[in-house]
This record gives sequence, C-alpha cells and structure tokens, in this order.
Amino acid sequence: MSDTQFVMPVDVHNNLVEAAYRKRGYTDDEAKQASRFCELAAWHGIKTHNALKALHLDELFGSQVKPQGCVPGATIDKRDTKFAASEQWNGNFKLGQAVAFEAMDTCMKLADKYGVGQVSVDNAFHYLWGGGYVIDAANKGYIAYTNCTSTLAEVVPFGGKFPTLGTNPHSWAFPTTDAIGFPICIDWATSTVAMGRVQQFKREGKTLPPGSAVDANGKETTDPNQVKALLPFGAHKGYGLSLINELYGGLIGGSLPTLRGKPATKPAGEKTVSNFYFQVIHPDAMNCGGYAKGRTQSDNLKAVIDDILGHGNESCLLPGQIEARSAAASARHNGLLFTAKELDEFKHVADEAGISFDTSSFAAV
Amino acid sequence: MSDTQFVMPVDVHNNLVEAAYRKRGYTDDEAKQASRFCELAAWHGIKTHNALKALHLDELFGSQVKPQGCVPGATIDKRDTKFAASEQWNGNFKLGQAVAFEAMDTCMKLADKYGVGQVSVDNAFHYLWGGGYVIDAANKGYIAYTNCTSTLAEVVPFGGKFPTLGTNPHSWAFPTTDAIGFPICIDWATSTVAMGRVQQFKREGKTLPPGSAVDANGKETTDPNQVKALLPFGAHKGYGLSLINELYGGLIGGSLPTLRGKPATKPAGEKTVSNFYFQVIHPDAMNCGGYAKGRTQSDNLKAVIDDILGHGNESCLLPGQIEARSAAASARHNGLLFTAKELDEFKHVADEAGISFDTSSFAAV
Repeated sequence: MSDTQFVMPVDVHNNLVEAAYRKRGYTDDEAKQASRFCELAAWHGIKTHNALKALHLDELFGSQVKPQGCVPGATIDKRDTKFAASEQWNGNFKLGQAVAFEAMDTCMKLADKYGVGQVSVDNAFHYLWGGGYVIDAANKGYIAYTNCTSTLAEVVPFGGKFPTLGTNPHSWAFPTTDAIGFPICIDWATSTVAMGRVQQFKREGKTLPPGSAVDANGKETTDPNQVKALLPFGAHKGYGLSLINELYGGLIGGSLPTLRGKPATKPAGEKTVSNFYFQVIHPDAMNCGGYAKGRTQSDNLKAVIDDILGHGNESCLLPGQIEARSAAASARHNGLLFTAKELDEFKHVADEAGISFDTSSFAAV
Repeated sequence: MSDTQFVMPVDVHNNLVEAAYRKRGYTDDEAKQASRFCELAAWHGIKTHNALKALHLDELFGSQVKPQGCVPGATIDKRDTKFAASEQWNGNFKLGQAVAFEAMDTCMKLADKYGVGQVSVDNAFHYLWGGGYVIDAANKGYIAYTNCTSTLAEVVPFGGKFPTLGTNPHSWAFPTTDAIGFPICIDWATSTVAMGRVQQFKREGKTLPPGSAVDANGKETTDPNQVKALLPFGAHKGYGLSLINELYGGLIGGSLPTLRGKPATKPAGEKTVSNFYFQVIHPDAMNCGGYAKGRTQSDNLKAVIDDILGHGNESCLLPGQIEARSAAASARHNGLLFTAKELDEFKHVADEAGISFDTSSFAAV
C-alpha cells in the first residue's frame, strides 16, 4: 500500500513547479528551467532531487536566505576570453538549474565546432543532480561531464582527521541510447556514503559499511551515532577524485573548502561559494575511422558493451540502468510517479503558490 | 645494504636506452622519446615502468613479436577532422611513448588556442605510465588527463563473474608547481590491486585486501592462490571508472575487451588493439577573474590546498607527493637512482645494444 504511486501528468507537474518558483521571485525562464530539471529528476526516479527537495533546498539555502542565497533574476556575466572552445562565467548566484542547463547547451554548441567545449562557473548555487544534465546531453548524442564543489566540507582527506573536502560528485554520461536504449551515466559523490545516509542509519539503528566515516578523534567508526565526518570511497583513490573538484574550484575562483556555505562566519574578504565545471565532447571528434568488421561507431560501442556484459556477466547492471528503468516506467505510465505522501507535500507547494491542485484524476499504479 | 642505490647520470642512462631502442629497429626520434620517458619514470622513482621494464615489455609484446607487436618506425596517420580542438589518430602500432608525448604536445598547443584540446588514438601500443605524460604537461603549466584501455581484460564488472574489463587507468595532473612545489598527480588503475601484486602476495604467502579479486567461480577471495580475476576498486564506483575507458575505446575504434592483446586467437575481422585518449586544459581558460582577497589563480589554488591539509590534516599526503620526493632526490643527487641489481640488468641491456657501460664511477647513496 505504501508503495503505491500515482501518475502526475508532466504538464500538471511543470505548471505547479513553475508557479512555485515564480512565487518566490524567479523569472519565467528560471521557473521553466527549474521545472524542466525537476521533471527530469522525477522522470528518472530520483527521489532525492525532485521538485520537493529542490524547493526545500531553496527555502533553506536559496532565495529565502540572506546573505548570499540564490538570487532570483540574477544575470550570468560571461567573461571575454581568448579561448575559443571555453567560456568562463560569473553565475552571480543565479538558480543552479538554469545555469547548468545553459552551460550544457553552450558546451554542446562548442563541441559541435571544436569537438570539445567547456564552461567554468564561479559564484554558483547548487545544481542538485549532476546526472540530470549529463543524461540530457547524452540523450542528444554527446559525451558529457560535470563536477562541482559541494556546499559543505564533510569529508576527511585520506590519512587525515578533519573534514576539509566536499562530498564533491562527478557525473559522466555517454551517448549509448542508440546502442543499448539509454545513456550510460556514471554519477556519484566521492564519499563512501552521504551524510543523509548516516542520519538514516542512526534512525534505523544500523551499522555503517567500513570505510564510511570517522568519529570526533578522526578514528574510523561504523557507529552512526559517533560520526563526525565522512571518508572518501576507495581510500586514496576516492580522495584523489574528491581533490580534483577542489582543484577545479580553486582554479575557477572558489573559496577555501572549510569556508564554503558558511557566509555568516567567514573572515573578511574571503568567499564562501561553490563552483561548477561542465564539459562536452562530440563523439565524432573521437572517431578514428577504423572500426572492426565495418561497424559504425554506435555498433562498435554496442559490441564492446555486449562483450562486457557477456561471458556470465549477463546479470550485471550498467551505471544509469536503474534510472533508465524509472524513465521507462514514467514513459509507460505517461507521467511522473509520486507516492501519496509526496502528493500531500505537492499540495502544500500548490497552496504556497496559490494554484489549485486536484489529485483525484491521478491513476494509481 | 640491499637498499643502497647508485646514481646514474642522465646522459649515460639516455645514451644507453636510446642505443637499445635503436638496436631493436626504432628510429632516432622514437629512441629519444623512449629514453625521455624512461628518464621521467626513473626520475620520479617509478620502478615498475623504468627503462628495464619498458625494454622487457617491448621484448614480450613489442617490436620482437609478430603479429601485431609494436612497429618500429611506424607513422601516425592523422585524420582530417572538422573539429578544431580535436585530433583523431591512427597510431599504426608506433611506440607508445613516442605517440603519447606527441599527443600531449598537440593537446597543449590546442589548449593554448581553444582552452581545451584532445587527441584520440586508435591502434595504440602500451604507453607504460600515464602519470609521466600528465606530470610533464602539468610541469609546463597545464591541467592534463589521459586514459587508455589496458591490454588484457583482467577485471570483473561489479556484480559479475568473468573478467571483461581492463585494469584501465586514469591519470590527471594539475599545474600546482608554483603553489606547492610539484604537480598534484592522481594516477591509478581501476582495479583494487594489480595482477602483479597478486603474484607478489602469492610468493610472500600473504592475504589480499578485501574487494581485490574473485576465484574461478566468480566468488570473492582474499587467497592469492585462488585468484582468477580482479575486482574494481570501490565496488560500483570503480566499475564505472573502468567502464569509462572501455566506452572511450569503443568510440575511438577499439576492439572487444576480451579480444584485446590476443591477436593469435581473434575471430576474423575483429581487432585486438588498445586505445589512448589525451586531454589538456589551459588553466587560464577556467579563470573566472574573481579570486578572494585579490589572490592570483595560483595563490588561490595554494590557499585551497593549504586549507585541505590544515586543521589537523598536516600529515596527509597529496597524490603525486611520493613521486615528487623521488624527483627531489634525483635532483639532489644529480642523476637517476638504481639498485645494484638494476645496474646488473642495465649491463645486459648495454651488451645487447653493443655499447660499453661502466658503473664504477656511479656514486652510492
């Protein structure tokens, strides 16, 4: 019963989300980009970054917060640059979803011309789910990548005691839709678990997996009640991957990691901001023209993937496959799937936005 | 006593290595690029990929092997491309070190103009140590990245039983020399351990770390005697990182992973080759012009790194720091450090190349 989900038509969802964003002062275009992103998240079954989470985040850290929340109606300043395949932006704390979609669009146009294009963003505000932007670009035929510095430093460097790194995610997606029906998407934080997972394990009285976290003395612990900070996944290897985002952030113009997201207590003159980095590669720009047996590029990619998932590995999942299954379910039901509890929360959103919201016509599945 | 090392002057080393490569049929330029690479590896203390290992690899899989070893004097075919910041090469099995240095040089020139540049290489032959090329580029002021598909499929996909992935390494380096004295270099295979390590543990009667390997039934084992294949590090996350190289390889023109490196048994029409991918970013192309407290880009990077290694984390190492310490020792001793056993092996190399090799003047340290 509690697993029952209800089908919300996309236009109902998007009208509601847009109204909520407009009500908070965002422009029509920002509201559209926000609803486009929330649709993408819900379509792929991403419960942690759907409209409800996005609006909640905006409430806690965004347009409703001074100083230095997200700034509705902010304009991106694009720096003059001599580098033809690159753009360098000051995001001016514009809504992260709007900045990220525009950056990916820009990268795709640059990749069309140069084979590869990149956009770096300073003064960025949380884009929620990097996987969404790269999946969107991969569905359009590109290899897409993004990383960002997470708002809070919650992760301890390998061999250290004190959290000075963000959970710093990386997101890659590949144009494998023709080959296998969906884009392969590799998308995760560089901590073993998220802080939200620690809270969940605490509530449920469970033990954390090894290599997840440290206590107040910087010693590893599997007791969620003792956790003071997180550990990178894969020891020194995940540490290196987390560090990459900090180095990108430092090069772009970001703040010291331990000051990030803490404007109230920052030393004078320091910044407290996150950064985004986006990159797109055109697959034709990697084509060396020599596929075996006269295969096309896509056929060769499919043959490689089939080989990896053959030989007894048929039950393995590809990264992005779970999201692809959710997307298929959304397509099958012709709408976005939400639980009754989520619909209740949407009702609050609708009330805040001052629009009517009738769930009685939503089919249960 | 067995730890004593001896200082080989760089010119002695390079003359010897060049002579050995020329003797095997490589051109003067190839021999120079090979010795340049071996110098770089030895300078940074990389014992697993120095001249002795490079020449041994060439013996086993390279110029001394038919069919389809490395081809001395091969010419790279550069494809006409409409993508201005990209090049697509057929390496024609030219010496990997020569191809990799030329690709990195090309990427740096492209990055000077476009902010980012990339070179994809089909029909590639082993470049030995990706870290060397990215460190070299980072020392010249660039952000550099490379990945490749490893010769043999030794790694089982997450949740699978049979090895269908290479140990597929990633190598990144950053221009942090001005900030902290050396380039940060993140460089590792995507398996938890290398197959060489399994052999070593077998010899030494030791137990493998958890998550390293599987037995003949695809079940995880820590007994090196039972090992049939390796596991990716970090469960599904390392699996995703290994898969990235296979997808790049598939897009570029590579073979099915389980056929790679096995020309003798390949089905008709299939390829058995590896691929390289190189990318360089110019740091100025990420500069958004808003560093706190009027810092330069390099100062900001230093402030970020200092913050990460502060707060009780002072004893943490940065990736690339061990290699940087070896490089500092090489500089201090004004030469390359080798053990007596290694010098004996170099004597064999000298004999093969037909040149004299007198170690009596090498200082012991």
